Amino acid sequence: MRIVVTNCNTTRAMTEEIVRGARDAASPGTTVTGLTPAWGPESAEGWLDSYLSAAAVLDGLRTYEEPYDAVVMAGFGEHGREGARELLDVPVVDITEAAAHLACLLGRRYGVVTTLDRARGQIEDSLHAAGIAQHCAAVVGTGLGVLELGDEERTTRAFLAAAERARDAGAEVLVLGCAGMTGLQRAVGEKLGMPVVDGVAAAVRLAESLVGLGLTTSRVGGYAKPLPKARTWGTGPGGPPPSE
Amino acid sequence: MRIVVTNCNTTRAMTEEIVRGARDAASPGTTVTGLTPAWGPESAEGWLDSYLSAAAVLDGLRTYEEPYDAVVMAGFGEHGREGARELLDVPVVDITEAAAHLACLLGRRYGVVTTLDRARGQIEDSLHAAGIAQHCAAVVGTGLGVLELGDEERTTRAFLAAAERARDAGAEVLVLGCAGMTGLQRAVGEKLGMPVVDGVAAAVRLAESLVGLGLTTSRVGGYAKPLPKARTWGTGPGGPPPSE
Amino acid sequence: MRIVVTNCNTTRAMTEEIVRGARDAASPGTTVTGLTPAWGPESAEGWLDSYLSAAAVLDGLRTYEEPYDAVVMAGFGEHGREGARELLDVPVVDITEAAAHLACLLGRRYGVVTTLDRARGQIEDSLHAAGIAQHCAAVVGTGLGVLELGDEERTTRAFLAAAERARDAGAEVLVLGCAGMTGLQRAVGEKLGMPVVDGVAAAVRLAESLVGLGLTTSRVGGYAKPLPKARTWGTGPGGPPPSE
Amino acid sequence: MRIVVTNCNTTRAMTEEIVRGARDAASPGTTVTGLTPAWGPESAEGWLDSYLSAAAVLDGLRTYEEPYDAVVMAGFGEHGREGARELLDVPVVDITEAAAHLACLLGRRYGVVTTLDRARGQIEDSLHAAGIAQHCAAVVGTGLGVLELGDEERTTRAFLAAAERARDAGAEVLVLGCAGMTGLQRAVGEKLGMPVVDGVAAAVRLAESLVGLGLTTSRVGGYAKPLPKARTWGTGPGGPPPSE
Amino acid sequence: MRIVVTNCNTTRAMTEEIVRGARDAASPGTTVTGLTPAWGPESAEGWLDSYLSAAAVLDGLRTYEEPYDAVVMAGFGEHGREGARELLDVPVVDITEAAAHLACLLGRRYGVVTTLDRARGQIEDSLHAAGIAQHCAAVVGTGLGVLELGDEERTTRAFLAAAERARDAGAEVLVLGCAGMTGLQRAVGEKLGMPVVDGVAAAVRLAESLVGLGLTTSRVGGYAKPLPKARTWGTGPGGPPPSE
Amino acid sequence: MRIVVTNCNTTRAMTEEIVRGARDAASPGTTVTGLTPAWGPESAEGWLDSYLSAAAVLDGLRTYEEPYDAVVMAGFGEHGREGARELLDVPVVDITEAAAHLACLLGRRYGVVTTLDRARGQIEDSLHAAGIAQHCAAVVGTGLGVLELGDEERTTRAFLAAAERARDAGAEVLVLGCAGMTGLQRAVGEKLGMPVVDGVAAAVRLAESLVGLGLTTSRVGGYAKPLPKARTWGTGPGGPPPSE
Repeated sequence: MRIVVTNCNTTRAMTEEIVRGARDAASPGTTVTGLTPAWGPESAEGWLDSYLSAAAVLDGLRTYEEPYDAVVMAGFGEHGREGARELLDVPVVDITEAAAHLACLLGRRYGVVTTLDRARGQIEDSLHAAGIAQHCAAVVGTGLGVLELGDEERTTRAFLAAAERARDAGAEVLVLGCAGMTGLQRAVGEKLGMPVVDGVAAAVRLAESLVGLGLTTSRVGGYAKPLPKARTWGTGPGGPPPSE
Repeated sequence: MRIVVTNCNTTRAMTEEIVRGARDAASPGTTVTGLTPAWGPESAEGWLDSYLSAAAVLDGLRTYEEPYDAVVMAGFGEHGREGARELLDVPVVDITEAAAHLACLLGRRYGVVTTLDRARGQIEDSLHAAGIAQHCAAVVGTGLGVLELGDEERTTRAFLAAAERARDAGAEVLVLGCAGMTGLQRAVGEKLGMPVVDGVAAAVRLAESLVGLGLTTSRVGGYAKPLPKARTWGTGPGGPPPSE
Repeated sequence: MRIVVTNCNTTRAMTEEIVRGARDAASPGTTVTGLTPAWGPESAEGWLDSYLSAAAVLDGLRTYEEPYDAVVMAGFGEHGREGARELLDVPVVDITEAAAHLACLLGRRYGVVTTLDRARGQIEDSLHAAGIAQHCAAVVGTGLGVLELGDEERTTRAFLAAAERARDAGAEVLVLGCAGMTGLQRAVGEKLGMPVVDGVAAAVRLAESLVGLGLTTSRVGGYAKPLPKARTWGTGPGGPPPSE
Repeated sequence: MRIVVTNCNTTRAMTEEIVRGARDAASPGTTVTGLTPAWGPESAEGWLDSYLSAAAVLDGLRTYEEPYDAVVMAGFGEHGREGARELLDVPVVDITEAAAHLACLLGRRYGVVTTLDRARGQIEDSLHAAGIAQHCAAVVGTGLGVLELGDEERTTRAFLAAAERARDAGAEVLVLGCAGMTGLQRAVGEKLGMPVVDGVAAAVRLAESLVGLGLTTSRVGGYAKPLPKARTWGTGPGGPPPSE
Repeated sequence: MRIVVTNCNTTRAMTEEIVRGARDAASPGTTVTGLTPAWGPESAEGWLDSYLSAAAVLDGLRTYEEPYDAVVMAGFGEHGREGARELLDVPVVDITEAAAHLACLLGRRYGVVTTLDRARGQIEDSLHAAGIAQHCAAVVGTGLGVLELGDEERTTRAFLAAAERARDAGAEVLVLGCAGMTGLQRAVGEKLGMPVVDGVAAAVRLAESLVGLGLTTSRVGGYAKPLPKARTWGTGPGGPPPSE
Repeated sequence: MRIVVTNCNTTRAMTEEIVRGARDAASPGTTVTGLTPAWGPESAEGWLDSYLSAAAVLDGLRTYEEPYDAVVMAGFGEHGREGARELLDVPVVDITEAAAHLACLLGRRYGVVTTLDRARGQIEDSLHAAGIAQHCAAVVGTGLGVLELGDEERTTRAFLAAAERARDAGAEVLVLGCAGMTGLQRAVGEKLGMPVVDGVAAAVRLAESLVGLGLTTSRVGGYAKPLPKARTWGTGPGGPPPSE
């Protein structure tokens, strides 16, 4: 089985890290390929970045030519998921929803620990749109930016402090709220005495499950195939300004 | 990986059918064992049956002595799930929630097609308690009892009629609302042009995913281990009546 | 009018205490009989106990042979209510819902003070399933187990501390969240300056009201009579293990 | 026990009918007195009438001088309930909420059959504000005005037609959605094969229950006593116009 | 364009202040007239006052004889809005909903800072009935009564303290929760670094918008015209008592 | 006051039509300029188009150099709104939310009549994210594509048929669910006897209101300014493919 994992930003080092996390989680026989969008933000932190990222990732997917069986979208709380479902004939699983789906199987309430507080709104909306927000007790920020997660000690410390707040709010299970945190679940899970779900790992397993069961996106209603029409995907540097 | 699948009723033929469905869905390397409760109802249809079934299934699990890695509870809409989570140190996945989790990845709204109309309330409550009810567009009965599902042609016909009502209510994905329907997804999916999710298959894959990722039930809060205390599990035939 | 009050556990002393509370609350002309299940947990604390209790209480009710006009189910947050409604032709009132119904008439928001924190999830689900959760501001644990409530001074102290937290969360009325607290409302109500509703008392009065008005459970839809079928109620000590 | 039942309009014949219904429902030892507001609308049908009625009924209560133990407010869906709770030291039960509370004990979903369609919004809001709307499946109008209910045959026919629609929407129990329908439950309940709850009867029993248990409105938070201040209650005919 | 702004109480000085706020907010070409009810409470603080106020304001509107294009109802959280919509052929905007509508355009969550804590319930219900409660993060009291808001320094101090609590609860925008606070937005907005919405100003602009676009209240369904019937609006001093 | 109205697609004729609608609705003294994105879809119909459109519109806004006081985003149900709020220091109003806000002032429930059924999900999500979905009774498709709306007679006929369904679902007010329908409110409003709200007109008036009151987007929390970082906005034709 071949899974394409899309990074939501243009930072290749992060794609590599995500691919490592995805490969660690994959079943034997699954191959994982990363896709770094050719344009977009270097990290997605906020709504502007998220919408830019969504278009860039969709552009990457529509021009991707190798065969694959499923897509994992590795931007926590980022937009684009439903567009990929329309575009592709294979299952699409987003790490936000994936982590929440597995978390619901492990406790009555889950909490998300993410990067900056400004990401909270997007995550809440994404969980709601995916139909899995009901048991989310809290979305808590660590105060660290996406590209600041490299210092593992600091990240662990910030994660544990934020996890405490999520637990006080009723969380019995935690979710890593950024693709860049992948791998952290081992370091913090034991210290917290709680299950910690990594969205990348969860999405890989859910994608494998759908493919294994022969299931793919419904074409009835919301995710019908895109209509044929003229679409242009950015003007590139030096392109024309918008016209009034 | 060893998965125990619990039937919710005492009808062994149904356990065998469920085990067949589970084996069809399992990954290579997974072994599936069925567990038929030693007591309870011959089929679970309604609240009384469901509560009786829950205790019988939990009794079966607490006295089961072979080693295993996960439990799949194969009673659609039946009670007991949270009790098994308390009791066991391995992941527990119920087919009701499992089907709904996967369905949410395939369309914006899902519908459940079940046996008798009287089952609808339990299913709605079970989905709500699992935190996955938000995108359920409808729970529709076929009018067939659990032990009447054997006539495949009649069952298919009744399923398609009920599926139409679910679709009118907004469902883009369908869920088989009874463990005894396992296998039916192939017959009806193509006719409907919609994905059809079998809860037994879904639960097997989700259980594999949790085990594969090293995740198990949280002991923080709701699913703490049962306290040691005196418990008796039925009096058996000829036991004493309740005391006033 | 004859009301049967079912204890949810096998501890007869607790049945007696509950019956005392019920008799104190009953109108002139109402007789109250207690029913202790012949099997089950000695106290119900958690999901496993609750499902075991549900089956045992239903077994008690189905084999109970004296005539009566209504049933009060005295397990706060415990399962079984809907099964009893199916089984019996007389009104069934559960103390969880009963307390909440009356509390809603006395203030804009109510809070529940219960025994162990682990009971909170069941109580929340039970109130939701009964349709009366909307105005519940908080369910708060005292940290005392069901069989530790005998020391009235300690119980009062723990109750008052928990009540403070419920009030901070917006509760204007309190509910005693365990049948074993029956009678405590007098001790704590005055100290708190808030109405305190005992579920046992509330349920007795609601049962009387339904009987008095000639109302009983609807047979349309959810609570249709159980279908005739083979059911066994536990194997008793020495019974056969479940079959694989 | 002395219960005052307030009509929401100035039509004395309707007060008398409501009092008859209340007396039929009351326990032995309860006396029921009707209160017709000295001003207000001759029937309450819509928001304007409802707000006018609320002030008139509160004026009636604040100037009522006989002793009593509880108040039943007999305007289905009409305003004023929370004001009476602030004003009085005795329990206040409104027939809208009362019917819904009892209905929730009898089935999983209830429906309200009322007079004109325009009343639906108020009833929905009233049930929501009372915290008991969750299990309301539908509020359905009969098309008959409040003062047209006298023709029992026509009313019964219109009620049965509307009840059918409520049942199709999932109602398992019905509620009479107008104080002027009191008594109708006997005529229609049998025909429908469903329990039918009369709000006047329900409120009388709930008021008795609260009084019997020594419970009254909380003064913590929402229903604190009205502050002393200048208030004038209408100018009467010939009074001054409002000043710009 | 002519807008009538109704004060909810009989204190003319407050009407004048509200009119000043409304004029400050109005577009060029809009004239604002205040309407002080001829009866009612001198300030509206609680449910009793609110229902009394609603009837008095509606009485004022129905007897008001000058021509106008829209009504702004300037009682924050007070009743009557829907009655005015039935009564009048021009648009009616209430300051509670108006402030919330604009606040939703400025941030993801808003908070209301009001006078006494006892007002919170009414405000919550009013926002819910208006369909705009979803993004309300908190309603917080300052502890100051309506007629105590004159001391601007004290009011500012109390407002800032309450605003802090609303912000901790997630509010990104604040709403002045009393018509008597109009004008305060300038003093506190800058100190807080957050937008502060005055309901009077918001309602004036929304009323202008509706009139400008030729929109008025729907007569389909909920806000059909009041039916012709006998209505009396208070007995005035010395009027007859209610009849039993 | 200068308002920029952004079309969500690259079809200039549609921008012109929207600008016409906006100018018709604007107050004297307001100037309206249209902005057609330099790239994106020729019409936005579905999730893929919507995400592409969002990035293109944001690209247009960030490179737009003329001064202006507010932005109206004229894509009904399209993404991007929150990104524009982060990006800009002036108020941003989206036509989806704008129409719903005004509709809530005109009736108890509103319905949206849109183009293709596939747009329904996006509109529902957009209304929910804006906090104004509670009173939405239905979103109904006409079956016409965005670029098929030019035939006014056919569009009117299709609109009226869809409006009927919305009304049956409880709508008392209708919303034009596509910017390309602007102007249609006059043709259909009278025929329907219900208020019909055009989102373009509503958004222009709301934008004017915010500017007039000196209100703009909160920078606290969700809509903080975008962080400085590397962002690329499309590669243009002939740009590099995404890297694996």
